[in-house]
Amino acid sequence: MSTTPTAGARPDEVRQHNRAVLLRRLHISGPCTRAALAAEMGLNRSTIKALVDELVGDGLVVERLPAQRSGAGRPSLLVLPQPHAAVALAVDVRVEQVSMALIGLGGEILNRCSWSLRPETRAPGEVFTRIVDSSAVLIEEAGVAIAAVGVSAPGVVRRADGMVREAPNLHWSDVPLGQWLSEALGGRRVEVGNDAELGVLAEHLRGAARGAADAVFVSAGVGVGGGVISGGLPLRGSGGYVGELGHMVVRPDGLECYCGSRGCWETEVGERALSRALELPEGAARGVIVAELHALAQNPDEVLERLGDFAEWLTIGLCNVVNLLSPQLVVLGDLFTALPRTLLDHVGGLLAQRSLVSRAMGGTKLVASSLGGDGKLLGAAELAFEQVLANR
Amino acid sequence: MSTTPTAGARPDEVRQHNRAVLLRRLHISGPCTRAALAAEMGLNRSTIKALVDELVGDGLVVERLPAQRSGAGRPSLLVLPQPHAAVALAVDVRVEQVSMALIGLGGEILNRCSWSLRPETRAPGEVFTRIVDSSAVLIEEAGVAIAAVGVSAPGVVRRADGMVREAPNLHWSDVPLGQWLSEALGGRRVEVGNDAELGVLAEHLRGAARGAADAVFVSAGVGVGGGVISGGLPLRGSGGYVGELGHMVVRPDGLECYCGSRGCWETEVGERALSRALELPEGAARGVIVAELHALAQNPDEVLERLGDFAEWLTIGLCNVVNLLSPQLVVLGDLFTALPRTLLDHVGGLLAQRSLVSRAMGGTKLVASSLGGDGKLLGAAELAFEQVLANR
Repeated sequence: MSTTPTAGARPDEVRQHNRAVLLRRLHISGPCTRAALAAEMGLNRSTIKALVDELVGDGLVVERLPAQRSGAGRPSLLVLPQPHAAVALAVDVRVEQVSMALIGLGGEILNRCSWSLRPETRAPGEVFTRIVDSSAVLIEEAGVAIAAVGVSAPGVVRRADGMVREAPNLHWSDVPLGQWLSEALGGRRVEVGNDAELGVLAEHLRGAARGAADAVFVSAGVGVGGGVISGGLPLRGSGGYVGELGHMVVRPDGLECYCGSRGCWETEVGERALSRALELPEGAARGVIVAELHALAQNPDEVLERLGDFAEWLTIGLCNVVNLLSPQLVVLGDLFTALPRTLLDHVGGLLAQRSLVSRAMGGTKLVASSLGGDGKLLGAAELAFEQVLANR
Repeated sequence: MSTTPTAGARPDEVRQHNRAVLLRRLHISGPCTRAALAAEMGLNRSTIKALVDELVGDGLVVERLPAQRSGAGRPSLLVLPQPHAAVALAVDVRVEQVSMALIGLGGEILNRCSWSLRPETRAPGEVFTRIVDSSAVLIEEAGVAIAAVGVSAPGVVRRADGMVREAPNLHWSDVPLGQWLSEALGGRRVEVGNDAELGVLAEHLRGAARGAADAVFVSAGVGVGGGVISGGLPLRGSGGYVGELGHMVVRPDGLECYCGSRGCWETEVGERALSRALELPEGAARGVIVAELHALAQNPDEVLERLGDFAEWLTIGLCNVVNLLSPQLVVLGDLFTALPRTLLDHVGGLLAQRSLVSRAMGGTKLVASSLGGDGKLLGAAELAFEQVLANR
């Protein structure tokens, strides 16, 4: 994330750069002593002191004694980000609900709301209006000003202007959500990203993929989406169109997918496929599916009997992802976090048998997301914070 | 490729950095006037003059009048890299042959040799011995010293030490090729990379994907391999294990593949699959396959009749690649360059129908490699030059 100033940078540019790196460090990794910051950033302690003093003066951080003392001697002060000093409005538009939150510097959620979407309330204009109304309520309740806005959308998004090109599960096509929101929110820049990209960004910065330079996040809801961290950065692809992992074909003679292909990963391992595999009634609610998976997990012997075919399609997709992208670990999100451990162990075993990249790397870890339902909100907030932190 | 010096760089570091960027610019993009270099690099003309004078003094570049005068007035001198000033030994180990070349600064091939491999001459020790012997001959014939060594290998390679972990088509497993060559060549560092990664690097720097920040290269020989340029850099994955595009599963009920999967892209669109699709005798030589494809291209009406199924598997793999990586263009190499245009147009049409990413981007260009059989050699040379140029 951090950039280095170019050759011949003036001293004030260097200082500005170091200040931004320091603020970002505190925002992402949390409270830290000055001594540890100096060691981590390779700057001397007087430089760190001057930068921290400046940030304290600007109200962006505070210094405080740690709640618990460790060891003898005088405890070191901790430098903490001040949540209210910079607040992002984060919006997570999903197929079945919209969640919104005000997220402070440091990643704390200050206030939140959400509502369900049904086919008749999914029209772009209606969703947009409710987002604008709800943001006014959130802001008033919390008594804060917002510094930036980030939105997660379940589809192909043009990053430059926040145009949602195709969000097939929402039946949206060419919806200028970024522009609409920007105009409604006083001309403020609004960053819109693909949900899977923001999901992996959040896992990389604050979740199960923290510290992993190469990771893949795959999550299943109505759709199946995935994002990729490669060399420490989100893979964005040309024009900001990130990859649509859910639309890999894993079963050429499988069901028709709205995308134009047949037997996409989404069609074979998404919510509807999981419901079919469990022999639940068509249209079973997510809660019913999760409950059934939890019940099944109590009977490990039955897991592969009932979900053996499902495991096969999950494996083929993961095998392709691992062979193409060679991640250190794969983070599973949403419905996938409810899959029984027996099933994941089975899939992990097949992966090691079938993927040469996985074998060469000594296996591939499959881990559940640690961010629960908040991953995409946190990712959307980070999209917003990127701009803010560079200029504070 | 270029890096910027870190904040607080000393003037000599800045100068060294600018010198390396300038040399790399001349190496990759060829002759240029000082004025154009100044404009391109954003440096003033006296700085460029000083750097060029230094490079001339070190024998790395020369200044010369252009061969053809354009317009009136005094023509500007061109700055040209001197091929003999820094020479890389490049080695391309393939399943059916080994090619070697001495490649000079600027990318010119100064001398080359190659030999065929058969199952009985593919043992790692034998290939290694012949590479060492041939390098001595090449170097003596050309009368040059080599500055660095780069090797392309058709398998999973650990970049840190040039260990070929698995090259299944060669039946190699854990061959320390980098270390062996380094010891045999006087302790010089030897960079070993995966052939597909080097193929895409060459296309990006010197071939059909020049200037494309997001591109995929897919080539078919005995195996099918692919490399990815993402955001202007080769995608390397964790531990330097680049993606194995050829081992995406495109046909779960297809033929068994040596990698442990079934119906890999390689199994369905590689040399043997193409030979089967054309109903040629088993084990038909590559020349026979290419001749048959060229003959078929003369009868566009027959192309899809004979290669319709083949086109389907090619499409599914490309659809997956485009949906995952959203490249601006896909460069096709080796045997794929012999596919009839009718077939590629058909595949391009299916791609636009079936891939949401391709549709969002207004289609995906499929272009043939412009480097012929030399792509991987040129890529291996660039791997070697990366080190050299940073220190000259």
